[in-house]
Amino acid sequence: MIRIFQGFITLILLIPPFAVGDRIVTAQEQIVHDAEYYILEAQNGERWSAENEDLDVKLAALRKEHGRPPNIIHIMWDDTAFGDVGIPAIQQVRGLRTPNLNEMAREGILFTRMYTEVGCTPSRAACITGRYAVRSGMYNIGMLRESHGMRGEEVTLAEVLSEEGYATAFHGKWHLGDIEESYPHKQGFDEAFFTGYNQILSLNTKLAEGANASIGLHEDMLPKDPYKLDDTFITKGWVQIAEGTKGGPTKQWGDNSHENYMKIDPEAQRRTLEFIERNAKAGKPFYVANWPNMTSFVPNPKKFSTARSILQDGLQGNIDPFVGKVIAKLKKLGIAENTLLVCMADNGPMSHNPPPGLGMAETIYRGGKGDFLEGGVRVPAQAWWPGTIEQGQLVGDIIHETDLYTTFARVAGALEHVPRDRVIDGVDQTSLLVNGDTHSRRDSVFIYAGPRLGATVKGNYKRHWISSDPVGESSGIPAAFYFLPADPREKTPMLVNLIHLKSPFNRMKLRHDLWKKKYPDAKEVHGIPWTGIANARPEIKALAKPLLDPKKLPFDPLEYIEHLDELPFDPQADPDFGE
Amino acid sequence: MIRIFQGFITLILLIPPFAVGDRIVTAQEQIVHDAEYYILEAQNGERWSAENEDLDVKLAALRKEHGRPPNIIHIMWDDTAFGDVGIPAIQQVRGLRTPNLNEMAREGILFTRMYTEVGCTPSRAACITGRYAVRSGMYNIGMLRESHGMRGEEVTLAEVLSEEGYATAFHGKWHLGDIEESYPHKQGFDEAFFTGYNQILSLNTKLAEGANASIGLHEDMLPKDPYKLDDTFITKGWVQIAEGTKGGPTKQWGDNSHENYMKIDPEAQRRTLEFIERNAKAGKPFYVANWPNMTSFVPNPKKFSTARSILQDGLQGNIDPFVGKVIAKLKKLGIAENTLLVCMADNGPMSHNPPPGLGMAETIYRGGKGDFLEGGVRVPAQAWWPGTIEQGQLVGDIIHETDLYTTFARVAGALEHVPRDRVIDGVDQTSLLVNGDTHSRRDSVFIYAGPRLGATVKGNYKRHWISSDPVGESSGIPAAFYFLPADPREKTPMLVNLIHLKSPFNRMKLRHDLWKKKYPDAKEVHGIPWTGIANARPEIKALAKPLLDPKKLPFDPLEYIEHLDELPFDPQADPDFGE
Repeated sequence: MIRIFQGFITLILLIPPFAVGDRIVTAQEQIVHDAEYYILEAQNGERWSAENEDLDVKLAALRKEHGRPPNIIHIMWDDTAFGDVGIPAIQQVRGLRTPNLNEMAREGILFTRMYTEVGCTPSRAACITGRYAVRSGMYNIGMLRESHGMRGEEVTLAEVLSEEGYATAFHGKWHLGDIEESYPHKQGFDEAFFTGYNQILSLNTKLAEGANASIGLHEDMLPKDPYKLDDTFITKGWVQIAEGTKGGPTKQWGDNSHENYMKIDPEAQRRTLEFIERNAKAGKPFYVANWPNMTSFVPNPKKFSTARSILQDGLQGNIDPFVGKVIAKLKKLGIAENTLLVCMADNGPMSHNPPPGLGMAETIYRGGKGDFLEGGVRVPAQAWWPGTIEQGQLVGDIIHETDLYTTFARVAGALEHVPRDRVIDGVDQTSLLVNGDTHSRRDSVFIYAGPRLGATVKGNYKRHWISSDPVGESSGIPAAFYFLPADPREKTPMLVNLIHLKSPFNRMKLRHDLWKKKYPDAKEVHGIPWTGIANARPEIKALAKPLLDPKKLPFDPLEYIEHLDELPFDPQADPDFGE
Repeated sequence: MIRIFQGFITLILLIPPFAVGDRIVTAQEQIVHDAEYYILEAQNGERWSAENEDLDVKLAALRKEHGRPPNIIHIMWDDTAFGDVGIPAIQQVRGLRTPNLNEMAREGILFTRMYTEVGCTPSRAACITGRYAVRSGMYNIGMLRESHGMRGEEVTLAEVLSEEGYATAFHGKWHLGDIEESYPHKQGFDEAFFTGYNQILSLNTKLAEGANASIGLHEDMLPKDPYKLDDTFITKGWVQIAEGTKGGPTKQWGDNSHENYMKIDPEAQRRTLEFIERNAKAGKPFYVANWPNMTSFVPNPKKFSTARSILQDGLQGNIDPFVGKVIAKLKKLGIAENTLLVCMADNGPMSHNPPPGLGMAETIYRGGKGDFLEGGVRVPAQAWWPGTIEQGQLVGDIIHETDLYTTFARVAGALEHVPRDRVIDGVDQTSLLVNGDTHSRRDSVFIYAGPRLGATVKGNYKRHWISSDPVGESSGIPAAFYFLPADPREKTPMLVNLIHLKSPFNRMKLRHDLWKKKYPDAKEVHGIPWTGIANARPEIKALAKPLLDPKKLPFDPLEYIEHLDELPFDPQADPDFGE
């Protein structure tokens, strides 16, 4: 048995991946997946191949029936613990109700093992590129003045689907950079209404300064500081929300006030519903990503949920009613049976900022946003496609958000437009959607903490690569192995009972690393933020200019921008401790 | 408003409780409840009174239809986290399946706020007496040679229902003492098949000694210890399982071997099913408590669940199939519509002995068996009564296990037999069973840690009385207030945001304490264990005799038994720390 297995490895490492797929004839065979995919394909390829033939027939019949490929809607909100959506008993004890999302789950699939990246920016990058965020360099959660963004060379889902004739739109929290190259309508979307950052924008207002929620952005509200020498340390100048079209101009929408911030989600929702209706009536297949702000970080006097955590309140008061409107619209337009709707969170709860602040609480899993523990990356997720996805399914398979990229491309008939010159981590999960529980083509996930691998999940097992138990990754005797069903909170690393997993996990990681030598990780790009804004105010235009006269300085004051990726991350962070 | 409220308090403290109920005419009015009940009754009494009239009509009609009052079955197993039963999505991630229990929940009520005491013995005492365990002195989790038990003066549910003509049986883990006075058939049950301790008995076997699961009980398996001076420190001699009938003899059943231990649950289940059938055929209403051992603490080579935690495995492999058999039997006998079935755990998971050992893991709530945190006392619980309890209900009301006593008495028409000379903490929750969600007559729970009050829950709020935040109960500025929906794991005590709860919680506790001056707590009783066993082996008879010749000692070697209640508990245990 061991010799046979070693044979597989030799095969995979010696033969180019294009040839590995000889055993299966699908459009997907030439996509370069991560090494682990081929280990599974070598064992399950025959079944997958047979399933694929059936799926092709099914998708072709659907296309014939509706006269076009299916529409795709992806709604992804922030920071929610697995279980907080779709499970009425948990919602009852958590003081939260999402009747529309729960009904959607009852009419489709509720996933219990949807994995994401650990934070907003990497999670969004992973969905839109089908690649772990580390591969596009988008592991940094971008804030003001980080002057960064996703490189144009990434091939987004919008580009893949556009090639197949889809109308594409992005509405909401993009959070993939504030440089022109990264704007969504420069990354393949026909139309975009987008924020470059996250909900922190709601703290940059005078209202938040007055409430002490943000400290020091609005000096005109403060007594003068007689000790202050530097006027450039804290700088203002950002675009709260912008809009643009492919090949057309980019404009700021409204001003940077709290009043305008509160209009962003309603406007994004209005645009999404209008986009759906417009394309349905034009008979054009469409893809729309509505990734809402969800909430303001300044508390809303009106509370929607008993829990009242700000994000949870936004989920109940803002997102859930919108999902209801989307589904009602699809039904009214008669396109529900030709539309795949996926709703999910982008990462775990913001449990590092606990109630009564902005945050949400840990529940079943330990950890939250930013952690490679299950609590950071296992999210509520559900899929709905009446007539194609069977009703009332609970799906326990592992699925990763990158899989949406490949799966959406497959159902759209657009696999041929997925690039072949890079690793695509997303695997085709069409069979999971159509055939249900136990039909995943993935049994593992690599979980990155910034640029470093934090943990690897394989089935019910998990290994922490960053750990102090007993002496971390450099030890010859690692002990940070976990058995997830019995130990969901990753509290009990086992040395003796699980040491037989050491070598298998080592193999996985080393294959993953070797593949990176052939297909290296890229970097995010840096530049002047908010260029190309047609209606830019003077403070936005000023972002391109040094704040000080370069002649008065012994160095180039903008030189640092090209070196932002040299900033330290926190590679020693060890979530095994604390709580 | 404040003056009106103060008026209530004066009324309640000055007028005997019998008069308080003037406003409501029910059989329950003269039962002495805890003070907090009257606060609620003063505000909700009119609605309750109207509901009671409807309930009386309904129960009378049922009695007429079936010719006798309803049967009552209470199945209570050990140590399970809220959510681990009845919620398929949680079971899927926890590697556990209980299809019969889940189906039962779908056909009845799934409770999301059933509270228990913190451990086995107090939880069992609370159910069987309708009183917090501290009132009967049964807060000590009894082990071998503690020579204790529940006093005969407690009036058990078996006594109350026997008075009304019910056949009564106890099968399984009694754990309310090893002295004759406490045996279940001396406490009102017609027939009993019972263990005096808990699953620790499975560790007292030679098998467990061989596996190092138990250390030092079987010296004949060990090398001789040349330093040993005392042959009496560790003593043997216990009854693994006994049987008896009201007024009849008590006998040990089988021996103390592991083989016999493994026969206990199957035999208890056989007896319960036989008891049900016998009484159904005799046309006699019955009450049976089947409180299983659930599992052996020596791992079973056959695994039933993916999680494989020993207790969880017993739940899936042992309890769940039994519940299926009970329901099938009720349906086959045609008595399902006249039988109230309640299934639940006795306290939270044994998370202080984590996997891969015996234990189970924390999930949504922090803490486990032994903790006054929600994780210790909030358990899976469900009720089933076809035709009377509506199908598919999720009930978010607070209910306490003591309420089962009063509720079972009410539905049996036996309220008049509930004693009036002591506090009965259990309130009548018949309306909750029949009318469903939002019909609880309780909004608070006192949670004891041994003999000391650990915490009080009132609605969504909780106060820890034992706390180091900032300086515990003696502080004039307590801060250990929690808002449970947003902070289910009780991680974020709030000083400023919840300080308005200080006075209301103080009032609650002081009223509760004042009531105790009128109705003082009782004590467990102590004596020679396992007297009255008809087939007692010599080592059991020897338990009555001192192990040493009293003439060689300067004190009475059995004197200590009368002072067991002076043993220290751990009153400073502060669950706010650690995890």
